[in-house]
Amino acid sequence: MITVTILGAGNVATHLYKAFTKANNVTVSQWYNRSLKPLNHYKNEVDITDDLNHLKEADVYILAVSDDAVAELSEKLPFENKIVVHTSGSVNVHDLDKKHNRGVFYPLQSFSKTAQLDFANVPICIETVNKPDYHILKALALAIGSPVKKVNSDQRQVLHLAAVFVNNFTNQLYRIGHEITESEGAEFDLLKPLILETAKKIQDLSPYKAQTGPAKRNDKKTLKKHLSILNNQDHKAIYNLLTKSIQKTHNGR
Amino acid sequence: MITVTILGAGNVATHLYKAFTKANNVTVSQWYNRSLKPLNHYKNEVDITDDLNHLKEADVYILAVSDDAVAELSEKLPFENKIVVHTSGSVNVHDLDKKHNRGVFYPLQSFSKTAQLDFANVPICIETVNKPDYHILKALALAIGSPVKKVNSDQRQVLHLAAVFVNNFTNQLYRIGHEITESEGAEFDLLKPLILETAKKIQDLSPYKAQTGPAKRNDKKTLKKHLSILNNQDHKAIYNLLTKSIQKTHNGR
Repeated sequence: MITVTILGAGNVATHLYKAFTKANNVTVSQWYNRSLKPLNHYKNEVDITDDLNHLKEADVYILAVSDDAVAELSEKLPFENKIVVHTSGSVNVHDLDKKHNRGVFYPLQSFSKTAQLDFANVPICIETVNKPDYHILKALALAIGSPVKKVNSDQRQVLHLAAVFVNNFTNQLYRIGHEITESEGAEFDLLKPLILETAKKIQDLSPYKAQTGPAKRNDKKTLKKHLSILNNQDHKAIYNLLTKSIQKTHNGR
Repeated sequence: MITVTILGAGNVATHLYKAFTKANNVTVSQWYNRSLKPLNHYKNEVDITDDLNHLKEADVYILAVSDDAVAELSEKLPFENKIVVHTSGSVNVHDLDKKHNRGVFYPLQSFSKTAQLDFANVPICIETVNKPDYHILKALALAIGSPVKKVNSDQRQVLHLAAVFVNNFTNQLYRIGHEITESEGAEFDLLKPLILETAKKIQDLSPYKAQTGPAKRNDKKTLKKHLSILNNQDHKAIYNLLTKSIQKTHNGR
């Protein structure tokens, strides 16, 4: 049995709490937050506290707090030589106070408050300063059904950056698709199967091999026509830049 | 029973042929291509020809050929007053020779040679010059299990343009994610569940509501850090432009 204390009450903290309580060989021994309000809903199932001095013994302390709060909170913890991890994609493992056995337990997924989340679809990127601590964090990730990967701070940083491209920026392209279609009274909904297919395709095929379309073909007639339809200057700039990027990737232009 | 003649031998033609042969109330009466070679594989199941003068009577003639070939091929057809449609997202319905009962049967999906395709995930955008022809084309789409939508040429053009954003450009963002991760020896595969989740999320949520991340939060520290990690100037330019686009959408900046 692995005992865990969760610190923080955001989306990651809440999803981890729910997953751990469902796992067979994990016990959430305590849930801390600087304000008890968001935890009150769970007070009949788990020991909650807003006082760091009341923290009980646990195998792993998970700091699921905002990036800026990680260093200070780790410093304030009134104990040492225990496994303390953060869950951030961009905070260095060494930002944790060095009195702890430091580590990272980074779930690479987009967390929203409402949606149900299957941790089988959430790879956990693990880093530890002390080698032996890796195994307990790996066991913790496997207990909630997640794939596990050892990832150092540099790799985690580029994964976090790449996630902005494939998640936030991709979502903004969906948004632009929404704006473009609505401007002519066409239905964005018609694009939804294509959006899903595009994401499914690269599960088995490299993005390089999956590419199609007028930019890759250098179909000048269609490229010109598309630019003439776009009347939003920002959309035009994005069209030009990404077309250029595709051509550079595929034709070395 | 609806009888159909397919003209062309590309991905769209082939996927439509397979879907029609499986449908209960559709018969492919003939398959034409200017060269018989790609059709030879099917010669035992369907009447194939490379001679327009040998075209037989059918209810609908589907020109699944390249955009540039549509007008000329429609002109060469040695009959008139029959339903003749093309399958292109960007060709105007009036580019078809006016001796025909003109229409468009545009499957809004990304077609690749190998992948199996379920037409339940392929919305068919239909346009007809003569109103009554709509019903037979709708019946044809429904016979292969596709959702159907009446879409005029202007709407179809913006759908085709929007498809470039949500398919080709999105795929290029996946490619950049691939490049960024590999540069540090991190695994692109770790991003695949996030990519799928991003596409799934907007099936029920508008892209506006689905947006998250440092650009939307205007998290200057992370934005600065990301730009410092990126050493490819093209990636930097795309990062800046899409960050600006997100901020304009969400914060009016």
